[in-house]
Amino acid sequence: MPRQITSFSNATIKRVRGLAQKKNRIAEGLFMAEGLRICTEALEAGHVPRVMIFAEGDRHELTLRLIDETEASGGEALAVSRDILAKVSGKDNPQGVVGVFDLLDTSLSRLDPAAAAIWIVCESLKDPGNLGTILRTADAVAAGGVILLDQSCDPFSVEAVRASMGALFTTPIAQAAGEDFLTWLRTTPAMLVGTSLKTEQDYQAVAYPRPTFVFMGNEQSGLPDHYEAACDALVKMPMLGKADSLNVAVSCAVMLYEVLNQHRHQ
Amino acid sequence: MPRQITSFSNATIKRVRGLAQKKNRIAEGLFMAEGLRICTEALEAGHVPRVMIFAEGDRHELTLRLIDETEASGGEALAVSRDILAKVSGKDNPQGVVGVFDLLDTSLSRLDPAAAAIWIVCESLKDPGNLGTILRTADAVAAGGVILLDQSCDPFSVEAVRASMGALFTTPIAQAAGEDFLTWLRTTPAMLVGTSLKTEQDYQAVAYPRPTFVFMGNEQSGLPDHYEAACDALVKMPMLGKADSLNVAVSCAVMLYEVLNQHRHQ
Repeated sequence: MPRQITSFSNATIKRVRGLAQKKNRIAEGLFMAEGLRICTEALEAGHVPRVMIFAEGDRHELTLRLIDETEASGGEALAVSRDILAKVSGKDNPQGVVGVFDLLDTSLSRLDPAAAAIWIVCESLKDPGNLGTILRTADAVAAGGVILLDQSCDPFSVEAVRASMGALFTTPIAQAAGEDFLTWLRTTPAMLVGTSLKTEQDYQAVAYPRPTFVFMGNEQSGLPDHYEAACDALVKMPMLGKADSLNVAVSCAVMLYEVLNQHRHQ
Repeated sequence: MPRQITSFSNATIKRVRGLAQKKNRIAEGLFMAEGLRICTEALEAGHVPRVMIFAEGDRHELTLRLIDETEASGGEALAVSRDILAKVSGKDNPQGVVGVFDLLDTSLSRLDPAAAAIWIVCESLKDPGNLGTILRTADAVAAGGVILLDQSCDPFSVEAVRASMGALFTTPIAQAAGEDFLTWLRTTPAMLVGTSLKTEQDYQAVAYPRPTFVFMGNEQSGLPDHYEAACDALVKMPMLGKADSLNVAVSCAVMLYEVLNQHRHQ
């Protein structure tokens, strides 16, 4: 039976609010996801909330299911006012529910590079919105996972989870140092392809095998030289305008659909 | 000769800060763009700042050029502290310069639908970050312009300008009611293609003529039925995962590069 919480200073509410900060996520081993759709996707992917916070009076079938599953697994369901929900989510116009989940396993060693035809690798990706968008595209192309190298942003931030629209729960994520990634990658035959401004090779002129690893550089600086040197191919998209680069999530998506299209037309 | 401004209450500084709000942009006929790169792109596209605000001591060649051109055209250049710059831009870690520009002409009638091979049309696009990203991709595929229908977000907001990385100044933008757009469109032979969840037509199975207008729906609800009915073709991208949609800027880019690829391989 959900408890009704009317105070901002309730201990659980305070703990959940604290999860907006990375240090608290690490200390607690938890992160939060907002919205009925994302929480339901999580549940369907086998992730039951530890804590479920919802607006009092919410009788939506999916909300009730989330509450039931949370309580059945020993978690806590809390009914709160819209004001408290807004405080928890940090938004004036909050989504109807907030779920708190165990941090996901992001070890690279649990993944098999031969298990999927397409993968994404991001080097020092900074913007959580870009990461969420890339996760969403990764889900769409049935990627084996998104591998975050070096100083990439935290996939469990509120912004990344929100932009992923739930793909965070359906697409494996790994965090690794560059060297460890390259060692892992080379345990199987695969193509590592980087997008680069330094090549004239058209991205459609390369035949992409299974698996192909699409390697995206940082938003500002692109791929560092030593990573470009580790690639099996460097390619570029036609850029006919004044700008010399695309948004990283856009560029990644154009690459991923090229690889997917080649695979499906084979 | 730039003036040195040391007070937050300086009249020009207050006016520029006010441009963060749409009502002030409309009242003043002005908007702001942050960053040396974006302001330089603007200048190269023929847009001279009315006001140029820069960090005191900034001797960058491009900053000096912006100051010169601003003053030569009768505008005002102001040297300010980092604190004031942060206040103006609303960011803790401000870009080095802020330029204030005349609002751009967004009338549809000034554009010729036969003048480019690719165009983008957005219906009630809500997120300024998505709009900026779409503008950046539009620049890359040499689109004739981005046409914003109905209740789309303001292209001159700080967020849209920032995400466009300067493409706002190089890619024509129009704002129009849906009916006026359709009347304008039908003055020339063209394909209007919408992405839709309601079709089984693969986006690569359609031959895209010149010009092709790629029609994107709102982030949450996609294209309304009456707009789908106005399309010459409805298409969808393969979606192999759990999610039923891509980010709108991603989806738009995948479509645009398909059209561009067909055109360049003809």
